[in-house]
Amino acid sequence: MAKQKKTAITPTRDENYPEWYQQVVRAAELAENSDVRGCMVIKPWGYALWENIQRGLDKMFKETGHVNAYFPLFIPKSYLEKEAEHVEGFAKECAVVTHHRLELGEDGKLHPAGELEEPLIVRPTSETIIGATFAKWVQSYRDLPLLINQWANVVRWEMRTRLFLRTAEFLWQEGHTAHETEAEAWEETRKMLEVYKTFAEDYMAMPVLTGEKTAGERFPGAVSTLCIEAMMQDRKALQAGTSHFLGQNFAKASGIQYAAREGDKEFAWTTSWGVSTRLIGGMIMTHGDDDGMVMPPRLAPSHVVLLPIIRQEEDREAILAYCNEIAAKLRTQRFHEREVEVVIDARDINAGEKGWGWVKKGIPVRAEVGPRDMANHSVFMARRDTGEKKGIDKDEFVATIAQTLEDIQQGMLQKARDYRAAYTREFDSYDEFVAFFTPENKERPEAHGGFAMSHWCDGSACEDKISDDLSVTIRTVPFDRAESGAGQCVCCGKPSSGRVVFAKSY
Amino acid sequence: MAKQKKTAITPTRDENYPEWYQQVVRAAELAENSDVRGCMVIKPWGYALWENIQRGLDKMFKETGHVNAYFPLFIPKSYLEKEAEHVEGFAKECAVVTHHRLELGEDGKLHPAGELEEPLIVRPTSETIIGATFAKWVQSYRDLPLLINQWANVVRWEMRTRLFLRTAEFLWQEGHTAHETEAEAWEETRKMLEVYKTFAEDYMAMPVLTGEKTAGERFPGAVSTLCIEAMMQDRKALQAGTSHFLGQNFAKASGIQYAAREGDKEFAWTTSWGVSTRLIGGMIMTHGDDDGMVMPPRLAPSHVVLLPIIRQEEDREAILAYCNEIAAKLRTQRFHEREVEVVIDARDINAGEKGWGWVKKGIPVRAEVGPRDMANHSVFMARRDTGEKKGIDKDEFVATIAQTLEDIQQGMLQKARDYRAAYTREFDSYDEFVAFFTPENKERPEAHGGFAMSHWCDGSACEDKISDDLSVTIRTVPFDRAESGAGQCVCCGKPSSGRVVFAKSY
Repeated sequence: MAKQKKTAITPTRDENYPEWYQQVVRAAELAENSDVRGCMVIKPWGYALWENIQRGLDKMFKETGHVNAYFPLFIPKSYLEKEAEHVEGFAKECAVVTHHRLELGEDGKLHPAGELEEPLIVRPTSETIIGATFAKWVQSYRDLPLLINQWANVVRWEMRTRLFLRTAEFLWQEGHTAHETEAEAWEETRKMLEVYKTFAEDYMAMPVLTGEKTAGERFPGAVSTLCIEAMMQDRKALQAGTSHFLGQNFAKASGIQYAAREGDKEFAWTTSWGVSTRLIGGMIMTHGDDDGMVMPPRLAPSHVVLLPIIRQEEDREAILAYCNEIAAKLRTQRFHEREVEVVIDARDINAGEKGWGWVKKGIPVRAEVGPRDMANHSVFMARRDTGEKKGIDKDEFVATIAQTLEDIQQGMLQKARDYRAAYTREFDSYDEFVAFFTPENKERPEAHGGFAMSHWCDGSACEDKISDDLSVTIRTVPFDRAESGAGQCVCCGKPSSGRVVFAKSY
Repeated sequence: MAKQKKTAITPTRDENYPEWYQQVVRAAELAENSDVRGCMVIKPWGYALWENIQRGLDKMFKETGHVNAYFPLFIPKSYLEKEAEHVEGFAKECAVVTHHRLELGEDGKLHPAGELEEPLIVRPTSETIIGATFAKWVQSYRDLPLLINQWANVVRWEMRTRLFLRTAEFLWQEGHTAHETEAEAWEETRKMLEVYKTFAEDYMAMPVLTGEKTAGERFPGAVSTLCIEAMMQDRKALQAGTSHFLGQNFAKASGIQYAAREGDKEFAWTTSWGVSTRLIGGMIMTHGDDDGMVMPPRLAPSHVVLLPIIRQEEDREAILAYCNEIAAKLRTQRFHEREVEVVIDARDINAGEKGWGWVKKGIPVRAEVGPRDMANHSVFMARRDTGEKKGIDKDEFVATIAQTLEDIQQGMLQKARDYRAAYTREFDSYDEFVAFFTPENKERPEAHGGFAMSHWCDGSACEDKISDDLSVTIRTVPFDRAESGAGQCVCCGKPSSGRVVFAKSY
């Protein structure tokens, strides 16, 4: 039996994937649970990652004509009730504010007092409150399109929570737009999905499939929900972003009407679209390995850590000066949309422990600097993605850093693409389809799960049966579904216009 | 009688200052009231201003060693109760979450259901929830100092609200730090006040006084509250930012303990400091005039608007091309920490109305571009701050834009300094002090209010009497109080170590 490689994370992905995930979040110092049920604390390293995600997306939103604004945290209950499907979708898991002060009771304790006439819901999403505002802002077709985005916190009272993936409170952006015509609203819905796909692939190095959700998986109140779906390393799908075509449903519920070019009053056509801190969960599960997090350089909070190795106290000053000199030169280099960001970790702790700390945090490049490196005008660099280590001349290190980071970025994307390709299979037989998703079936190599590209009759009966039997759902109906050719539903055998994507999911 | 100048805002500042303020907020499209009591909608122009405030402050926080993180929106009631003064300060005005879903009742309506075992408070400030986290993060003196900032929304259930100045929900940043020694925590408290002062003056062009609050005006639970105070154009004071030395009060309440260098367990020393969207209210009331908002260039969402004047349709293409050329050249220029930001407003609406729209929004520079300007290779520029208008060669316009913006920035700061100086007076007689704050006393020129620099015996009885009689409070006890020399309390005549700042306030 081969000697087991020692890993920084226990258990490994193969041993216990969900537990591995929690341990990576912890070891990488990205987030932790708070004492408030389901609410997380996003730690500085995790929040810096979120700030970079925000910066990248915000730029893309602004380039596509959107502006930011801010709307109330609270939604009157009556607003939520305006759209029937919408309220049904969110009523079961919302935080309700009923009082506006605390008062000392006879038991010497503080109790809620000052009951509100109408309860307020902490926003789970803002279609209704933003809709009410849009109704005031939109008078004429000249006021359209209205292209607004909000960065905010939202609350959905989930019963089973997991850091980043499903938390009671999370951070997100929600785009809300209103248009003159159905066609323009559809164009916006598709355009923002494309922005999400570009961001996922170009920044996060996380390949995604795009398509439409089935009726059962739609956003409550939407006419159509488009999505990006990524494959995690346990072969489950993660819904990483959604873009909703809302038709005139919310415009009618909120009264968003405009004087049309011909003079009649018309209801606007609206869209909404969002991604959240869940993206961080997606990055961990796409790139993390058994030593912890691996950060894609375009989003990494820092690109390079310099690790001074001080074995004798008399070397300290010279080595730190050498590190400062290299750091200053690295910072003059640009990578992607910012300067190369460098940390010098001169903490006086065990060198091995210090180095592993940065491995677990996933910083793209580490460079050790000891007396011998200094004498050789070099550093000893390590790439987090491949594990490759080598001594390199310090000037070459600086001159090639941007290319190194770009190689890492592209390598990570390619690796994730290859992984997805390896676990995406076409199935036409229901037995094989079932076997694919039955992990206890260890002797069958295909029983590893993944994305099953199979035909579907468009019937909810088959969708429900597959969900009940296997906990497998249709993740997305590809836009180019027809290109896979017609066939028979993998479940019932009725005609299908093309394959759709089945998977287990988060 | 001189002909009254027509103003864009009605009423003027002199006619009705509070109403003038509301009208400027509205006319400048900064914010509006929502249907949710006390919660505002921050409109795109106002939010872009807030984003610039955030960018400027965030940079200064990071330069002083702080990192951002994010903590839960909800605070368990028991956490708030850990610090006695703290809970007393906030219990009267907090939003209380008592249920976690809505359920259909027999009346066919949705009612709160799923009562929580312990009510949750929507954070009015985060000392207690962040303290609980710090207690986990801090083990040893090596973990200190802990220098954290959070950008977040907070809720205080104010009964009388006013856009930006006092709203139930507002946006802010709250710094929270923990230190090994009392001296270090004090140094941090003072350092962050200095950051706020620098930001207020260098970015907002709003001069501020610094000092300490009296015991009665302290943050609930703090040992000492330092503040920056600015004078508005109605001569009232606005508390624009606070920095609190919390001693060991919250460390004891939350159990933030560390193993000291000598090995004993010690409680940490903590600070907190914050500024909010109230700063926008301060900018409006410092710089706004009877034509609307005046934006300090370093924070203005855009610096320059180009206004094409198209009188004949056949000129349109050429004029727009000319505008695009100038805009492109302007955007190559840098001002302060960013590129010059330019809008071309080519909307097909009345030219006068369009120009006045930008006056009201307070953009620093407007430039009209008509056929004659194009023929002369010039533009017709107007400065928002001085109202100065002139034709200027287009290349000179571009080459001098950064200097023009800097002139505006410095001119605004100087004007605000002069205003404050004009309405800051020393009073040693209580009669004169009273007259100063008695506006009905129209025939007395000093009866305009402002900052009264007067002696105080340090007694709360005099402080209360002045507050009761005149609604005037001690805004701040200057750090250099002693420099004004000893004297007698303006109210009771007892000895005073130096003058303090009295004013009416927001």
